[in-house]
Amino acid sequence: MTTDEPVAESTSVPRRPGRPRDARHDEAILAATLAILRRDGYRGLTIDGVAAEAGVGRPTIYRRWPSKPALVVAALVHAARLAVPDIDTGSLRRDLIAVQRHQVELMNSPDNRRVTAGLVADLAADPDLAETYVSRYLAPRRAAVWQVLRRGVDRGELAADVDFAFAYDLLVGPLFMRAVVWGEPLTADAAEKTADVILAAFAPRS
Amino acid sequence: MTTDEPVAESTSVPRRPGRPRDARHDEAILAATLAILRRDGYRGLTIDGVAAEAGVGRPTIYRRWPSKPALVVAALVHAARLAVPDIDTGSLRRDLIAVQRHQVELMNSPDNRRVTAGLVADLAADPDLAETYVSRYLAPRRAAVWQVLRRGVDRGELAADVDFAFAYDLLVGPLFMRAVVWGEPLTADAAEKTADVILAAFAPRS
Repeated sequence: MTTDEPVAESTSVPRRPGRPRDARHDEAILAATLAILRRDGYRGLTIDGVAAEAGVGRPTIYRRWPSKPALVVAALVHAARLAVPDIDTGSLRRDLIAVQRHQVELMNSPDNRRVTAGLVADLAADPDLAETYVSRYLAPRRAAVWQVLRRGVDRGELAADVDFAFAYDLLVGPLFMRAVVWGEPLTADAAEKTADVILAAFAPRS
Repeated sequence: MTTDEPVAESTSVPRRPGRPRDARHDEAILAATLAILRRDGYRGLTIDGVAAEAGVGRPTIYRRWPSKPALVVAALVHAARLAVPDIDTGSLRRDLIAVQRHQVELMNSPDNRRVTAGLVADLAADPDLAETYVSRYLAPRRAAVWQVLRRGVDRGELAADVDFAFAYDLLVGPLFMRAVVWGEPLTADAAEKTADVILAAFAPRS
C-alpha cells in the first residue's frame, strides 16, 4: 500500500455539483483510510476518524461505502491498482520473483499484519463483504499472477496442466502464514524460494 | 476440534478444595468454549456465555485465563492435543498425506473460518496472546510435522538441507489461504497436492 500522492484539501475547495468534486472526495477519503490503517491498524480505524482526516462529513463517506470494511476494501483496491506492476521479462523465474518481491514488500509493511488480520476476520463474518473483497481485490491480483504463469506454460517452462488456483495459493499462502499468522517478517529470499517451489512443483514433464 | 466427551455438571458437584475440582472445571470450561466456538463463532463467544454453558462463575474462568483470546487458545490447544495423530507409515508421502488430511479436515470444519480469522485478528493486536498461541498451539503442531520431515530426510526421501520452517508454511499456508482467506472449502485432493509439492520442492539431489 503506497499512497504518497497529495490529498485534496476538500474543505477549502468550492462546492460545485458533478463528477470533479466526487472524484476529489473519493481520493481524499481513500487516502485518509490508508493513512489511518498504516498508523492505527484496522481496529483503530473509524468512519469518524476517516471523515476528520479527509475533511468530509460522515454522510459523504456513507453515500459511497456502506460500512467500515467496505471502505477498507475500496482503499486496498485503490492502493493495489497503483502498485501492482505488470511484469514480462521473458523468463518465468524472473517474472515470479518480481511478483513475489512485490508481495513480500506488501506483507512486510509495518501495519500489514494488523490490517490484513482484522480484515480477514470481518470477511469471515460478512459474506457480502467477502464477495466484494474476493471479486475486487483478490481475484484481480490472482489474475495478474495467472498471466505470468500462462506465459510460462506457453514458453514450455511449466507443465501445460498446471493448476493455476493452487499455484497462486502456493505463492501467497506461505507468505501469509509467516507474516500474518506467525507474525514474523519475511526474509529477503522468500521471493526466490516461493518462485522456485512453483518451478519444481509444476515442471514440464519431458 | 473434536470434544464429544461428556462435560461434568460442575454446579452439582460438591465443592472441595484441591486438584480434582480444578480439573473438572478446566474440562467443563474448555468444552463449553469449543461448543460455543462451533455454534456461534469467535465473535459470538463471551466469557459470560462460557460461564453459563460450563455451569461456573466468571471468576472461575478468569482465575485460569485472563481474557477471551487466552481462553480460546487454551481450548484449541486442548482440542489439538486430543486430535493430532502420530503418524509413521515408513513412507514420507503417506505420512505427509495423513498429516495434511487431518489439517484439511480441521480447515473444513464448519466454524473454522470464523474462529481462525477472529483469533488471528486478536493475535495481531495482542503480542502476549500471539506468544501464547505460537508457543502452545502453532509450534507444537509444527514440531509434529517436522518429525515427519526429519524421518523423510533420514530415509533419503528429502534433501538433507530442507528448510523445515518454510516446508511447514508450504504445507499449511495454501490450505489457510483457500479455506480462511478465500473462504472456499478444500477439495478432497488438497492433502495429496500439498504433500507432492514438498516432495518436488525438496527432492534429494542425486
